[in-house]
Amino acid sequence: MRPLTTADLNPAILKVQYAVRGELAIKAEELREKLQSESHGLPFKKVISSNIGNPQQKGLDQPFLTFTRQVAALMEYPPLAEIVKDKWPQDVLDRAKELQEDIGSIGAYSHSKGVPLIRKHVAKFIEERDGYPSDPEDIFLTAGASAGVSLILNVLITPNQTGILIPIPQYPLYTATLAQFSGVALPYHLSESEGWSTSLEEIKAALAKAKQDSVMPRAIVVINPGNPTGAILDKTTMCNLVRLCEEHSLVLLADEVYQANLHRPDTHPFHSFKQVVRELNSPIPLFSFHSISKGVKGECGRRGGYFECTNISDEVRALLYKMASVTLCPPLSGQIGVDCLVRPPRPNEPSYALWKKETDTIHEALRHRTQLMAQRLNSLPGVSCVDSPGALYLYPKLELPDKAVEEAQKLGKSPDTLYALQLLEETGICVVPGSGFGQKDGEHHYRLTCLCPGVEEYVSALENFHLKFLKKYGGL
Amino acid sequence: MRPLTTADLNPAILKVQYAVRGELAIKAEELREKLQSESHGLPFKKVISSNIGNPQQKGLDQPFLTFTRQVAALMEYPPLAEIVKDKWPQDVLDRAKELQEDIGSIGAYSHSKGVPLIRKHVAKFIEERDGYPSDPEDIFLTAGASAGVSLILNVLITPNQTGILIPIPQYPLYTATLAQFSGVALPYHLSESEGWSTSLEEIKAALAKAKQDSVMPRAIVVINPGNPTGAILDKTTMCNLVRLCEEHSLVLLADEVYQANLHRPDTHPFHSFKQVVRELNSPIPLFSFHSISKGVKGECGRRGGYFECTNISDEVRALLYKMASVTLCPPLSGQIGVDCLVRPPRPNEPSYALWKKETDTIHEALRHRTQLMAQRLNSLPGVSCVDSPGALYLYPKLELPDKAVEEAQKLGKSPDTLYALQLLEETGICVVPGSGFGQKDGEHHYRLTCLCPGVEEYVSALENFHLKFLKKYGGL
Repeated sequence: MRPLTTADLNPAILKVQYAVRGELAIKAEELREKLQSESHGLPFKKVISSNIGNPQQKGLDQPFLTFTRQVAALMEYPPLAEIVKDKWPQDVLDRAKELQEDIGSIGAYSHSKGVPLIRKHVAKFIEERDGYPSDPEDIFLTAGASAGVSLILNVLITPNQTGILIPIPQYPLYTATLAQFSGVALPYHLSESEGWSTSLEEIKAALAKAKQDSVMPRAIVVINPGNPTGAILDKTTMCNLVRLCEEHSLVLLADEVYQANLHRPDTHPFHSFKQVVRELNSPIPLFSFHSISKGVKGECGRRGGYFECTNISDEVRALLYKMASVTLCPPLSGQIGVDCLVRPPRPNEPSYALWKKETDTIHEALRHRTQLMAQRLNSLPGVSCVDSPGALYLYPKLELPDKAVEEAQKLGKSPDTLYALQLLEETGICVVPGSGFGQKDGEHHYRLTCLCPGVEEYVSALENFHLKFLKKYGGL
Repeated sequence: MRPLTTADLNPAILKVQYAVRGELAIKAEELREKLQSESHGLPFKKVISSNIGNPQQKGLDQPFLTFTRQVAALMEYPPLAEIVKDKWPQDVLDRAKELQEDIGSIGAYSHSKGVPLIRKHVAKFIEERDGYPSDPEDIFLTAGASAGVSLILNVLITPNQTGILIPIPQYPLYTATLAQFSGVALPYHLSESEGWSTSLEEIKAALAKAKQDSVMPRAIVVINPGNPTGAILDKTTMCNLVRLCEEHSLVLLADEVYQANLHRPDTHPFHSFKQVVRELNSPIPLFSFHSISKGVKGECGRRGGYFECTNISDEVRALLYKMASVTLCPPLSGQIGVDCLVRPPRPNEPSYALWKKETDTIHEALRHRTQLMAQRLNSLPGVSCVDSPGALYLYPKLELPDKAVEEAQKLGKSPDTLYALQLLEETGICVVPGSGFGQKDGEHHYRLTCLCPGVEEYVSALENFHLKFLKKYGGL
């Protein structure tokens, strides 16, 4: 018997990298373990996992929305209705009853595309958002947006032939999934000096390079609002992107999971690509992704989301359905979450006031923290940070002292990994180095989430560490 | 702009087939829709989806286990504890409190391998089952067993090179996933005349053929208890299989999701491959899969399960963890389900009596139905059916009249598809034709689940249809 080694395995899998849960996250787990012993000797009391947009995690404790959870509890145990009937709002009871009558037990597999009734509600939500019709048959509920992205990329990519345009910096799900399915990443750089804007020239250059390399570009990924950048596309750029997809026969993958995370909606509103495609009456094939994990809901653990197909033929849709059916169905708990996302309480309903207060509070906290953190980081020597108008992140750029860069090289690490590791070891704050998202050669960044209960303490820790780091390596 | 056609897509995806939710299931959905109109004109009142082991689906309505659902409801909405504290059993309240204190919110992503505490409980469950140690670090919680199988096959398969031995008949997840990842299926036939037993000679013949075809056999899939066969492996066969894996350096994938579905445990007990591997002190790499979707729990909609790695190096395990982390984490609702599966109420606890009654009732119903259905099907002309000692299915063999076979050929369908389509259209019972699971050339089968509320009515419908079908095609 030969033992199983990595040399025996699918070589594509060996190439997969996923920095959000990589070296830093593993180190963070170790430190969290270590903190449990009384004589840990660490210079902090808790690990803050700012590597991942996970609002309800322990220590961050963004509260859940009461409406969603009361409905979900009733779905878990329908006889509960009798017990809480005079204690919980009538609209909660009504919603759960309506869903139960339609779905039956949440312990049963649903339709592989998701519960038809919930898909109808998603379509209605999209119609109200965009002002254009949406067909429930074009909606696929998924186990979070990631599962949808993975399905679509798996279907679009002919191994070692198909190119997918991805922004740099990007959310590493894309590079990881491209590596998994042997797709060719065609990176296009976002412009940091213009607030991480998307440049058509960069995309055209990437397309030209693909041609040179005999790679067939099949699709373009656009993350809007951006991850890790927090940038929001203006409508003109979106129109130009759609025209570019027409010209080059590209499928558009619109990752819109942060569509509700808008810190300055008056000046930086969100427009969906579905709306722009319909306004332009464009024939481009579009897959739009949304999720219950972000926004103010932050229900990551339920694994719920959806994608909408626009300008996708019945034949291709049937193929997607076939693939969805192999995984049986998305988790019902996520599907219930999607229903509550797209059908929040209305102003005349008894749950509305609490729901409004809860969501307003979270929106305001995110806005406030993002702004404060960007401002304070920008005041530090050697740090510049675009003040994100959306999403849950900041992506500051670091000018690191030569000595730090040299030390990183000696250790075989990227300089921002060195920085992030020391930040973690000294403050307990776990961020993701820019090398995990992509950046220009010689640049250094890190991504941190704007999720933290005590923002003052958190920013101070970042500041103190940064100054100490500069001093240590002769940069001050 | 060229439209997106299936010719543009990953050719591997086009080859995927998944009969459990294929033509029959789609037709069943259409009929279910049609039944909603008053003038449907159909000769039945409801569609029974016997194509899929989905116990809690509407119409079958296998009840949920109260303990699981009460714990889950408390996890959804922790303030509920105050309301139900004098109404629900103390062990339910204690369990939810323990999990809440450890996990925090179920709206947060967990560790990508699953909540560490729940993995500890799984390891303990395995230790008690097998009498051998189990390490929580070897446990990966998953979104049902399918997600685990898909992960392992993706990692094991180098496209167009790696062969995986699969039983015929098999659960079509395996052929579908092999097609998806361009693995080579190496079929070995089970012996129907010996109660669907597993023959080493068949496996050796498949290995010889692989060698001839220059395919590298990497792993063998064993489904025990069998799906669709319901057969249970005896220990001698299991030992021989392990030795064969040693000899040919094969990874063993043990699909043990029906381990709790035993109709005659005295004569047909379940042994896990983990136990056999440890007893033999064998070094073979083993992945064992389990799920909350089957057994008497039937919590398919939660998407929960786990796999255990045995004799897997740290290096390979780290790679599995990396891939698990790209999908973030399994649904927390499924993870809570796993905890309740592996830690049911104990005899001295207040929930025990009800839990025992609920589980006993379901076990007995499954046993009774399986036995009755096998007996009645066996009495029909042209039908023979192994009386399954386990799992949730029967897989009767049909001798079909020549005229039926000819008609099927004219329609470009397999004869058992013709049979199953007519069964559906005349009775509303949706089964899966044997061609979806695999069978010898010229043979015809179908798989039906032993899940139905009124077994007498159900069997009568099968009988009446069968006789009518034979008459129609001159077989009576």
